[in-house]
Amino acid sequence: MDADGAGARDDGDGRTANLVVTKPKDIGDADFANYFCTYGYLYHQKDMLEDQNRMTAYSDAVRLNPDSFRGKVVLDVGTGSGVLAMWAAQAGAKKVYAVEATHMAVQARKIVAANGLSDVVEVIQGSMEEVELPEKVDVIISEWMGYFLLRESMFDSVLCARDKWMKPGGAMFPSHAKMYLSAIKSNKSGQKYQELQESLNVWEDFVRNTHENYGIDLSCMNGEYEDEQKEHYLNTAAWVDIHPSQVMAKPFTLASFDLNTCSMDDIKVLRDVDFKLRLFDGLAGPSGETRVGAFAGWFDVTFAGSKENPCENPVELTTAPDANGATHWGQQAFYMFPEVYASDGHFISGKFDMVRRKENQRLYSVRMNWTQSDTDAGPPNESIGTRGIVWQIE
Amino acid sequence: MDADGAGARDDGDGRTANLVVTKPKDIGDADFANYFCTYGYLYHQKDMLEDQNRMTAYSDAVRLNPDSFRGKVVLDVGTGSGVLAMWAAQAGAKKVYAVEATHMAVQARKIVAANGLSDVVEVIQGSMEEVELPEKVDVIISEWMGYFLLRESMFDSVLCARDKWMKPGGAMFPSHAKMYLSAIKSNKSGQKYQELQESLNVWEDFVRNTHENYGIDLSCMNGEYEDEQKEHYLNTAAWVDIHPSQVMAKPFTLASFDLNTCSMDDIKVLRDVDFKLRLFDGLAGPSGETRVGAFAGWFDVTFAGSKENPCENPVELTTAPDANGATHWGQQAFYMFPEVYASDGHFISGKFDMVRRKENQRLYSVRMNWTQSDTDAGPPNESIGTRGIVWQIE
Repeated sequence: MDADGAGARDDGDGRTANLVVTKPKDIGDADFANYFCTYGYLYHQKDMLEDQNRMTAYSDAVRLNPDSFRGKVVLDVGTGSGVLAMWAAQAGAKKVYAVEATHMAVQARKIVAANGLSDVVEVIQGSMEEVELPEKVDVIISEWMGYFLLRESMFDSVLCARDKWMKPGGAMFPSHAKMYLSAIKSNKSGQKYQELQESLNVWEDFVRNTHENYGIDLSCMNGEYEDEQKEHYLNTAAWVDIHPSQVMAKPFTLASFDLNTCSMDDIKVLRDVDFKLRLFDGLAGPSGETRVGAFAGWFDVTFAGSKENPCENPVELTTAPDANGATHWGQQAFYMFPEVYASDGHFISGKFDMVRRKENQRLYSVRMNWTQSDTDAGPPNESIGTRGIVWQIE
Repeated sequence: MDADGAGARDDGDGRTANLVVTKPKDIGDADFANYFCTYGYLYHQKDMLEDQNRMTAYSDAVRLNPDSFRGKVVLDVGTGSGVLAMWAAQAGAKKVYAVEATHMAVQARKIVAANGLSDVVEVIQGSMEEVELPEKVDVIISEWMGYFLLRESMFDSVLCARDKWMKPGGAMFPSHAKMYLSAIKSNKSGQKYQELQESLNVWEDFVRNTHENYGIDLSCMNGEYEDEQKEHYLNTAAWVDIHPSQVMAKPFTLASFDLNTCSMDDIKVLRDVDFKLRLFDGLAGPSGETRVGAFAGWFDVTFAGSKENPCENPVELTTAPDANGATHWGQQAFYMFPEVYASDGHFISGKFDMVRRKENQRLYSVRMNWTQSDTDAGPPNESIGTRGIVWQIE
């Protein structure tokens, strides 16, 4: 309902404010009740094609591994403007099936023709789950990743395509994906908490005015309104562009997927993942304490081929914090309320869950319960206890 | 896909920039594929309840016309938080059926109870087209109006309720609605045209870079991209808060509806409406010319009861340009490309159509063809000819 804050650069105590990056009109702005609508615009395709990290990684994955494509049959899941399919064709693929659900398929067909690749690339308009291909394929290439890897749930369509259309020993592009968690410096936590307080004060005035001016008492909604606003301000993850200097602990690997072998069940939920983050040394100021404002999550994918058809030159695409600015995926920040005050070398450990939301299977809820301790094996600091928050990834 | 410009105050050559009004998160922000979703939030209900013109008009309509409600059976279509239904009960209604499609019905029931009105107000969750009432009603009250009156098409549900549940001689609240068109000063037209040019320049660079860096030629999409961007920049109506000093001609009444008698066909399309606007005297500067930047549209509704049960004290709610700032409906601006240069007393006349969009029946397209002439009866100025634009109301 309200996109405030999304897209703002999280500038970690203001120190990296000179690196302002505007969030592009990307995947994340799509309303997922209308999941495919946005992808029908060239304007949106352009935004994705302008993400240089994304483009370079996929381009290199194809260009540096010609043996994976020469003479092969390739499937591109969600081809959009057809770029990945055309690269595969340019690399010598015998045949490329380029599947696209939206009207963009019509444009892709024109672009393929204008690039003289219609003999090889066949654009098929339809949802991946429903289209029929005339043959099985050697390679599946797809740019399916959403925020924090799993958002959008397009991963499902890619695995569905693999199970239905991939020859034994075929290779997925990308072939591997990993999800990471760390702790970050951020002053947004306090700011969001203050915005919540202001919003509740405004509500209080509104209830008083409505009673005085219009004779209706809405005070019975105070609790409901507070819940609704807490959900918005405190329980919503945010798109952020983190500077590497904000990262406070070595990233913990939450999940690791081998796309050639993982099952649909593997990707649907991450439950009870035990994580442990050790804060770096040298973070604490003169008081001996440092402030942790949020957890942050991101992902990377690797193009390494399959066991039977490994890539000569594996390529990696990471969405980790980067001093040059984020990819269009950014990172996701999960703000802590209240913030954690800890010392160098302290541990933040707990359990991580990520499950699909009931009302929209393309969206996720993340839950973390965590404790803070000053030793690796030690019990949680009793004075702080275990804390837990659920965040919605919008 | 892109909300730039929507919600910005149209400040008519910058002269009223001190009257900045922020567009609330209102009806217009709802995605209409999810029409009812937004109405399920208290935050959104609050925005509507904070529109003082809206609240005062409905409150006065009930409060100043007690005979219309005392001892009557009332239906509130789309009750939201239940406010209109409760006012009807406080005014002495015997029974009020308050129908609401969203989960807000549950909150409305609690609010009604907290205000001690559960004996009279019965909240029914369901769509108006499907709910069954145990009896017919004397009065239907509803706040159904969307941008430029018709957007959202909730009018349909209200007329459907009337045809199914109103007793003969019953009264609609509001009972009448009118739509207006005028011409306005605005510098947004030139600005939008320039934004379009910039966007096309950026595309040109993008196409060149994509070819150079990634070997894909997208130039065959130049025409499609231009069409897409023209649609966005030139063919989209905008929410504006017009200062009365921007209005350049006496508003022309495009349509006039008697809610007690009009049919569903009357409200579905407005076709071939001949309009004529005479520019005020005293507008032209030293050059003898004045610049018209846009058409603008708005509406008002009247609470006058029915022929059989007229209101003692009719009340009006207008969304016309107001120096104190707009209601949450604002006005709709339809920018002209290019702008019209005319002299005092000149006429802008033509045809106006407003039809539902095929892909979403809650949204509309407006088409106008117009000519400019220096005499009332005279032929169009041949040097300018007839111009036509279609705008989407988003």
